[in-house]
Amino acid sequence: MPKNAFYAQSGGVTSVINASACGVIETARASRKIGKVFAGKNGIIGALREELIDTSKESKSTIAGLRHTPSGAFGSCRYKLKSVEENRAEYERLIDVFKAHDIGYFFYNGGGDSQDTANKVAQLSAEMDYPLTCIGIPKTVDNDLPFTDCCPGFGSVAKYVAVSTREAGLDVASMAESSTKVFVLEVMGRHAGWIAAAGGLAKEEKNDPPHVILFPEIAFDKSKFLAKVKDSVKKVGFCVVVASEGAQYADGRFVADAGLKDAFGHTQLGGVAPSLVDMIKEAHGYKCHWSVADYLQRAARHIASGTDVEQAYAMGKAAVDFALAGKNAVMPTIVRKKSKPYRWVIGEAPLSKVANVEKKMPRGYITKDGYGITAKCREYLEPLISGEDYPPYKNGLPQYVRLKKQLLKKKLKPFDISQ
Amino acid sequence: MPKNAFYAQSGGVTSVINASACGVIETARASRKIGKVFAGKNGIIGALREELIDTSKESKSTIAGLRHTPSGAFGSCRYKLKSVEENRAEYERLIDVFKAHDIGYFFYNGGGDSQDTANKVAQLSAEMDYPLTCIGIPKTVDNDLPFTDCCPGFGSVAKYVAVSTREAGLDVASMAESSTKVFVLEVMGRHAGWIAAAGGLAKEEKNDPPHVILFPEIAFDKSKFLAKVKDSVKKVGFCVVVASEGAQYADGRFVADAGLKDAFGHTQLGGVAPSLVDMIKEAHGYKCHWSVADYLQRAARHIASGTDVEQAYAMGKAAVDFALAGKNAVMPTIVRKKSKPYRWVIGEAPLSKVANVEKKMPRGYITKDGYGITAKCREYLEPLISGEDYPPYKNGLPQYVRLKKQLLKKKLKPFDISQ
Repeated sequence: MPKNAFYAQSGGVTSVINASACGVIETARASRKIGKVFAGKNGIIGALREELIDTSKESKSTIAGLRHTPSGAFGSCRYKLKSVEENRAEYERLIDVFKAHDIGYFFYNGGGDSQDTANKVAQLSAEMDYPLTCIGIPKTVDNDLPFTDCCPGFGSVAKYVAVSTREAGLDVASMAESSTKVFVLEVMGRHAGWIAAAGGLAKEEKNDPPHVILFPEIAFDKSKFLAKVKDSVKKVGFCVVVASEGAQYADGRFVADAGLKDAFGHTQLGGVAPSLVDMIKEAHGYKCHWSVADYLQRAARHIASGTDVEQAYAMGKAAVDFALAGKNAVMPTIVRKKSKPYRWVIGEAPLSKVANVEKKMPRGYITKDGYGITAKCREYLEPLISGEDYPPYKNGLPQYVRLKKQLLKKKLKPFDISQ
Repeated sequence: MPKNAFYAQSGGVTSVINASACGVIETARASRKIGKVFAGKNGIIGALREELIDTSKESKSTIAGLRHTPSGAFGSCRYKLKSVEENRAEYERLIDVFKAHDIGYFFYNGGGDSQDTANKVAQLSAEMDYPLTCIGIPKTVDNDLPFTDCCPGFGSVAKYVAVSTREAGLDVASMAESSTKVFVLEVMGRHAGWIAAAGGLAKEEKNDPPHVILFPEIAFDKSKFLAKVKDSVKKVGFCVVVASEGAQYADGRFVADAGLKDAFGHTQLGGVAPSLVDMIKEAHGYKCHWSVADYLQRAARHIASGTDVEQAYAMGKAAVDFALAGKNAVMPTIVRKKSKPYRWVIGEAPLSKVANVEKKMPRGYITKDGYGITAKCREYLEPLISGEDYPPYKNGLPQYVRLKKQLLKKKLKPFDISQ
């Protein structure tokens, strides 16, 4: 009897993470070498609680529909397993659950923290002499994973931000003579400015928006920023700013720090845009508008990048292919062969090396003044937002699939998770 | 020689106001009964300054491309002419400019204030014995104009809000177990809740988002609201709130009043979402996320409603047809014949009656508890967001047209506008 597989979504979701799930499930089904795919209800928490969704109960068309459905269809979580030393019981519980349901494959779809977890599970299963193939599947809108040229989830956020910047820029341009002079769009990206950089793609000609991009990688200098905004209003008539939520002063203080932290200990941010607008109003008196895209940007499946959807699916598929080829503790990656025309292939990286490394924007991708993107950056980003992959519509709204989410019958005693 | 026409865009722009411009220009060109169409650079300000864009210099394909280009391609303005008694000189200046450029038609594309202006110009031109045909073209994302069943510009914002609510709702649903429990989306709508109502279309099944909609028409009751949010989190696991920027307490105080006013004397709002989130965090301690859509929603041509684009174009076309049929001081309207299947025809309303009337949501469109939309409201809204009308893309970005905006040679002396 072929072993079953466990698949879980982890961390902040994206508009294409379900396309990876689709790739995993369709490839596993077609292989006939994997029994059933069980998905963690709300990610790894589902494994700890033995809440396993039986994906074999979902129809072929529902699984196919995951490819165009945003967010985490099985539920995700912000739950970081402690180190093996600190909470060995959690890892043993995972192995127990996997054993109980004859699971031989563990596919973990997430960012750096999750790849770290997958790697630890791989180590422990070897140690406990329970054969488990652990494959990571990259996912993060932040695009900050190492080894892979880009991360599934990023291209679609990038497209959303580029499109929104272009559209809002046209709006401000048409109002600036007598009304709004400055528009600030706040986008995600805690420590890396990849998403903010994507706003730069909206610019085709010299005076086009955005006029200022704020990256976490470049120390925020208030007076220089205010001078730049004024300069843009004087020269172009208006100013469009794309600001990363992670924009920070030289001393590391965030431009807007809400003082909250999430389960991974990351600072919970929000409010850069209104903070910047306050500064601008006070200094220059301009009428300003601002927008905080927040979840809209990472959920926007309606404007997903065709490249991103394709890669997200391919990563899911590759994970299964790798597992069946006998690989372990690795993650498929995207290897760029050429930018124009865009060509990429699938590579691989050992999970031990992926974990907890953040890939920031290279300085050469940011213009000298720190407020724009270079041609090199554009060459990198452009293929990632290329192609449209529209979901089906009904009554004016995208039709996203709903899963039955039928749980397996529990076989073990309840387990108290540390949460 | 046929008379020329003057066309101007007024007030906040929309993702389809250029489709109306396209309807005006294409219909005028095809008629051969109108000379050239001159557009005001930045709206009526362009007429006062004698800054007239010669649209005959724009190619056929550029004009056709206006149909899929958001914002005001000729520039708009927030500039309200004073009453004739207060500033007769401004009205006389308009007539002087029209005379100087042999303009016999005035097409004014805007909301209630603009229809009022168009009506005054019609009166004065009659009084001054200068034959001028004045036709209003409805436009406002707020959907608050009387007589017309809906307003061009609204359907696309409604679609954006409905789609975004559905997408962000899926995101929160997948994170809620261990992370974000509440998401608040702030949308436009100063005094009318039409846009917020559109968020309600995202709901298909009982527990679907949004769980709370805040309308300006329903007095905001903090403790009732907080109880409702808590109830949703208890029952469904999470809560999605769509809040109109105009949400207000019983005494008329806005939930978030930034204390600013625009040229029309309207309060400049923003920040309802963070205000609500502060309340929720304080009362319940839930992790919250929030988004302010602001200009993104009204500029989002990439997700425009097919119905809306069609109607915006039809209103521009009808304006020219009306003018050529000898009508004056009227505005074409959208008359709904049937909701299922949706059927509508073009009607008309006298400008004198349109001016400065705000059409609010009927109480029967809002559920008894004040937090949702009724089946009747859904029946009204659904056709307005139906159909997708995607712009062309290149390198992953929508290709919006750029105009030459060649100005006519001035014939008059400069005029000091009151601004």
